[in-house]
Amino acid sequence: MRTISLTAINGIPMIKAGDNLAALIAGGLEHTGLKLENGDILVVCQKVVSKAEGRVLDLREIEPSEFAKALAQRWEKDPRAVEVVLRQTNRIVRNDHGVIIVETGPGWVCANAGVDESNSLEDDRAILLPEDPDASARSLRDELRRRFGVSVAVLITDTFGRPWRDGLTEVCLGIAGMNPMLDLRGTTDLGGRELHHTVVAIADEIACAAGLLMEKAGATPAVVLRGYQYEPYEGSAKVLIRPPEADLFR
Amino acid sequence: MRTISLTAINGIPMIKAGDNLAALIAGGLEHTGLKLENGDILVVCQKVVSKAEGRVLDLREIEPSEFAKALAQRWEKDPRAVEVVLRQTNRIVRNDHGVIIVETGPGWVCANAGVDESNSLEDDRAILLPEDPDASARSLRDELRRRFGVSVAVLITDTFGRPWRDGLTEVCLGIAGMNPMLDLRGTTDLGGRELHHTVVAIADEIACAAGLLMEKAGATPAVVLRGYQYEPYEGSAKVLIRPPEADLFR
Repeated sequence: MRTISLTAINGIPMIKAGDNLAALIAGGLEHTGLKLENGDILVVCQKVVSKAEGRVLDLREIEPSEFAKALAQRWEKDPRAVEVVLRQTNRIVRNDHGVIIVETGPGWVCANAGVDESNSLEDDRAILLPEDPDASARSLRDELRRRFGVSVAVLITDTFGRPWRDGLTEVCLGIAGMNPMLDLRGTTDLGGRELHHTVVAIADEIACAAGLLMEKAGATPAVVLRGYQYEPYEGSAKVLIRPPEADLFR
Repeated sequence: MRTISLTAINGIPMIKAGDNLAALIAGGLEHTGLKLENGDILVVCQKVVSKAEGRVLDLREIEPSEFAKALAQRWEKDPRAVEVVLRQTNRIVRNDHGVIIVETGPGWVCANAGVDESNSLEDDRAILLPEDPDASARSLRDELRRRFGVSVAVLITDTFGRPWRDGLTEVCLGIAGMNPMLDLRGTTDLGGRELHHTVVAIADEIACAAGLLMEKAGATPAVVLRGYQYEPYEGSAKVLIRPPEADLFR
């Protein structure tokens, strides 16, 4: 039988700036009773990565600009939180109904620049996306290899909304050890015809699969996917960003 | 350990109009050596559902309209295929770069109205989406209950592109036996604050998880997800369509 399995990693404590995330995940694996194997894929939610990397701002230290104040007043938001979003923003894609969809510095298109006000340990905190999620993934991958002598792939994921479809789903923001895309162009279908437009965003599909086990309250920040076949590959999750010139919706 | 597993169902033959899909999936389960259990979630790709339901058009019988001919000439497409897309379309959302993004009759927003020209048994065929994917899912669910005496949920999925992010992912078009949304509003995060905007499109996450095992060449049209906890629920996948008034991108 061709089977893949996903296991929730429990026992990872609340993360704070400077924590060694790989060590805490290793502790979680032990607590869960799961031993990493070669070829496993470790999926880690962005929030614990950002916290460990100290990507947390104290809103009390943020001085909102006039524009941030105007936006906040228009949509009844916290002007300091809007200021934090704007500081992560290269371009506003759409701003209506109280929603701010932006392009972030690295190019992600998402609401509020991915800035999160929930799940911080104290109030008045905003959590930013990791500065370089690919680097965060590589660092975890390397540290797990050192610790356990196994080669795994690592994905850093976040929960985004999307146009046209309601509800949030997980997406991949950083990757190490595997290709985020599965390119089936040139292969043929069962009728013998070439498949032309079939590039599958498997990193986002893996993110969603892991999302089924990641409780939104933050109790399960990491999941191990076992049994999914992939070739080792050094790449970047940034190929998941649709190039602006091929994107009809920004 | 909290683990979920996904298993590819092999041994399902090429489907043709009038086939009893539930019977062929039952044969596939036997071939695979997997016995359905209460609470399993069966994920079936749209294409085999559409074929079994006879949702296949012979392009040689399609007379393209003047508009279809104009579009086809502008973008170097088959005017008959464009005509088929237009007949499934209520509104064109965007038409540029050779891409036609539409709202279909039931409300799905997708490229080419979900009409597929690959994987048909012969050339000159176009496969439409099922007329009522929820009904298709209910029918499969009921037939499997009769056959095996088990209560499972059934999802019908397709492969769609999306704005902002490159690559295709699986989405849910039809559902029976479970709620496509997981509504976490009113629950609290680890800091004790209420989660306000957290409605997770778990049906799309399950579709993506199954997509990891569905080969694009069509050899694996069905996957069983086991171990995912859900409450029995009678609903419709149409709640996954973002209401137009809350959608900033159409």
